[in-house]
Amino acid sequence: MTEKNYTLLCDFYELTMGNGYLISGKKDQICYFDVFFRHIPDNGGYAVTAGLQQVIEYINGLHFDGDDIEFLRKKGVFSEEFLTYLKNFYFTGDIWAIPEGTPVFPHEPVLTVRAKAPEAQLVETFILLSLNHQSLIATKSSRIVRAAKGRAVSEFGSRRAQGADGAVLGARAAYIAGAAGTACALSDKEYGVPAGGTMAHSWVQMFDSEYEAFDTYCKIYPKAATLLVDTYNVLRDGVPDAIKAFDNNFGPERRDVNLGIRIDSGDIAYLSRRAREMLDKAGYPHCKIVASNSLDEFMIRDILNQGACIDAFGVGERLITSKSEPVFDGVYKLAAVEDDRGKIIPKIKISENTSKITNPHFKTVYRLFDRKTGKALADQICVYDEVIDDDKPLEIFDPDYTWKRKTLSDFKAVKLMKQIFKDGELVYDMPDIEEIKKYCNSQMETLWDEVTRFENPHEYYVDLSEKLWSVKKEMLDNNGRRQ
Amino acid sequence: MTEKNYTLLCDFYELTMGNGYLISGKKDQICYFDVFFRHIPDNGGYAVTAGLQQVIEYINGLHFDGDDIEFLRKKGVFSEEFLTYLKNFYFTGDIWAIPEGTPVFPHEPVLTVRAKAPEAQLVETFILLSLNHQSLIATKSSRIVRAAKGRAVSEFGSRRAQGADGAVLGARAAYIAGAAGTACALSDKEYGVPAGGTMAHSWVQMFDSEYEAFDTYCKIYPKAATLLVDTYNVLRDGVPDAIKAFDNNFGPERRDVNLGIRIDSGDIAYLSRRAREMLDKAGYPHCKIVASNSLDEFMIRDILNQGACIDAFGVGERLITSKSEPVFDGVYKLAAVEDDRGKIIPKIKISENTSKITNPHFKTVYRLFDRKTGKALADQICVYDEVIDDDKPLEIFDPDYTWKRKTLSDFKAVKLMKQIFKDGELVYDMPDIEEIKKYCNSQMETLWDEVTRFENPHEYYVDLSEKLWSVKKEMLDNNGRRQ
Repeated sequence: MTEKNYTLLCDFYELTMGNGYLISGKKDQICYFDVFFRHIPDNGGYAVTAGLQQVIEYINGLHFDGDDIEFLRKKGVFSEEFLTYLKNFYFTGDIWAIPEGTPVFPHEPVLTVRAKAPEAQLVETFILLSLNHQSLIATKSSRIVRAAKGRAVSEFGSRRAQGADGAVLGARAAYIAGAAGTACALSDKEYGVPAGGTMAHSWVQMFDSEYEAFDTYCKIYPKAATLLVDTYNVLRDGVPDAIKAFDNNFGPERRDVNLGIRIDSGDIAYLSRRAREMLDKAGYPHCKIVASNSLDEFMIRDILNQGACIDAFGVGERLITSKSEPVFDGVYKLAAVEDDRGKIIPKIKISENTSKITNPHFKTVYRLFDRKTGKALADQICVYDEVIDDDKPLEIFDPDYTWKRKTLSDFKAVKLMKQIFKDGELVYDMPDIEEIKKYCNSQMETLWDEVTRFENPHEYYVDLSEKLWSVKKEMLDNNGRRQ
Repeated sequence: MTEKNYTLLCDFYELTMGNGYLISGKKDQICYFDVFFRHIPDNGGYAVTAGLQQVIEYINGLHFDGDDIEFLRKKGVFSEEFLTYLKNFYFTGDIWAIPEGTPVFPHEPVLTVRAKAPEAQLVETFILLSLNHQSLIATKSSRIVRAAKGRAVSEFGSRRAQGADGAVLGARAAYIAGAAGTACALSDKEYGVPAGGTMAHSWVQMFDSEYEAFDTYCKIYPKAATLLVDTYNVLRDGVPDAIKAFDNNFGPERRDVNLGIRIDSGDIAYLSRRAREMLDKAGYPHCKIVASNSLDEFMIRDILNQGACIDAFGVGERLITSKSEPVFDGVYKLAAVEDDRGKIIPKIKISENTSKITNPHFKTVYRLFDRKTGKALADQICVYDEVIDDDKPLEIFDPDYTWKRKTLSDFKAVKLMKQIFKDGELVYDMPDIEEIKKYCNSQMETLWDEVTRFENPHEYYVDLSEKLWSVKKEMLDNNGRRQ
């Protein structure tokens, strides 16, 4: 698959502003932009960040082809000086980010860009698009996988995805956050997300009988056969036909064959219990039952509570679009600029809605882990060069309600953000997808159960350091009118 | 932009079934699959079909590269015979479809594939993905545009889209169904969706004052300037600063300059009314007001009802993800097969849920228009070779409640489906995007207002012909147990 050039996948105003910075003498103005989000989808207690690899590929590939320049010239609004500038355009700045698969929380920077103004603006749209999309699906996947309590969850939603990347990269994000695999073959080839699948209803309909369809399938795939049993009637026809096909081809003794049935309609809780009885009675306790009908974390939790006998779930549209809340609200906000001497001048965006006031300055994020339990206690957003001495007790406080204070001791402070690009060069050793998945799983285990609850989870502490809080407070106090 | 090869963008089971058809002697089995949907998003009265162009490009590009074959071989489940078959694989079948931009209704085929079993299966995933995604966004766009009552609606949502195609093709679908343009530059370059945009808050923050930011912008873009007025305080600072910049650069007399302000936060209804007064008083009644904060059809309708003075809307995440209902539920179901002599054998999928019972047979769809008003009266799904004689009165009836009958006269019957591929060759003259948009607009005008209502719309009639109904009824009656 040839890589697409996504340089023009930007909001048009990134270009009008870029042209404007050039003409108004600000093309070398160094600025800092943060990506952060305000709201966790489904009112959850955490999100899982994903999409960084595609950001890296995008930044590495950033350039304007001749036909891009021609397209822009025809728009009739850009100076020739800017078009010439774009001919030689590439990314020369720095990027820091929290690695993919990390649980993240509102208001903390998950990615920071330090670059000249036109560069920093241009990359806004794609960076947000990639992180918003994949973090959305990773977060949803994490919830669904948790509901399944150790049972495999496969991503089955390509046909309902919002576009090709929605399918292929959505499957990638779902896998990182805990899904066992996907139905999407391209996501396997491109990103190593294990793809699998056996038959649709059309296979069953293509034969004179359901039994013939099952029997033929077992003969063709003698190592693993998951038979779709709901084309006609699950309990009257489907399960008996499957047992007959298993008997004819394998028999109950052959435990080396991966046998399964899949139920894609009807009341999964009831049908799976009855199917389990029938399979067990026929000598197939090792035959797995897969369910795949309009599932999400709530449905899975409910049917498991009702004693459903399900070994694995196939989850479609509700995962691949994060149907219950299909938007991740990451934003990209100016946090600082540098003056002529390289001094960092913090910037803040004031809003009448206090939750929309940004955290100024070039920042970094520490996660504080309890040394005894290994659990994450709080995150602290600091000025970029602050170092937390975790040999000393640390008093943290709520940035909105500063009288809410707590002293931590016996903790370990881990810097979450890694440098990804330095002066336009990739300096980050991108982990492969299996490493990311493993890392995500290990990081999820550092969260208290209270934080991962579906309903009304505990709000994880994301505090500002004393130093950063002072900077912000001073700016708010001095604000009166404008920054 | 290089085209990607999406041949492997399929559910893995399409390949296991393909291999199975080959081995079980069914590789040349001709079958008919219909794409149809059951539910209109947002409980609307109609959907707008879109995504056909990408289906055409996909079908034309269908082939397995050497590394695709190698990838499949390594999965360890496919026969060498099948892998050799895939090497020479291309689409040899027929496709019929309802053109993009047509209002469509539940249960009618919007696309039909007639092809050999492995081909017909393989194309399922991408066809559904493309039609589901773009029909979803086109339908949402149509609703939002209708709410705006003639005011321009621009698509602003790239940063919140579900992947790159979500952004670029979503903007295309939105444009077809009535949006005036997009913020996405790539959608302009690739698909001719007019892109525009001026400035973000960061532009304003990059200058020492809001006025300087506005004044600089007006100097750089002296033909058209839309100034974002809510970085600090819309009424106290933003609008006065904009007026000052307009005064300094153009003055009230210069009606050749396209002036605008954009409000992106706060109470749009109130702020826009006050801003309008201020602009009018300052001599800028021709300055347009653009609003762009968390908008959708309901919000737009409400703020217009409250007397908001808005000339144009920028709509982001709620359009590009169809946030209120982010899934279009198109399915792909077997409708018929051909026997050895080429005789069409209808197939039906029975379900205990009657609304899930499919319409069997190779079919076509007529739309019946009132000759006097030009309005669409009903659609009739017919057996493929039926011809409706619109010189004679026609009795139509509800396929579920057959006593509900109505006789139409003085109507015109128009066949909705066009042949797109014939024996693998493209035989359809693909209209360009402006033609599709115009066609969509003209077709929307054939719908009664009752059908386009947001709440509780009139259910448009989609009936079966007497002949098709008889086929279906016989199959249901004979069904007893199985087809």
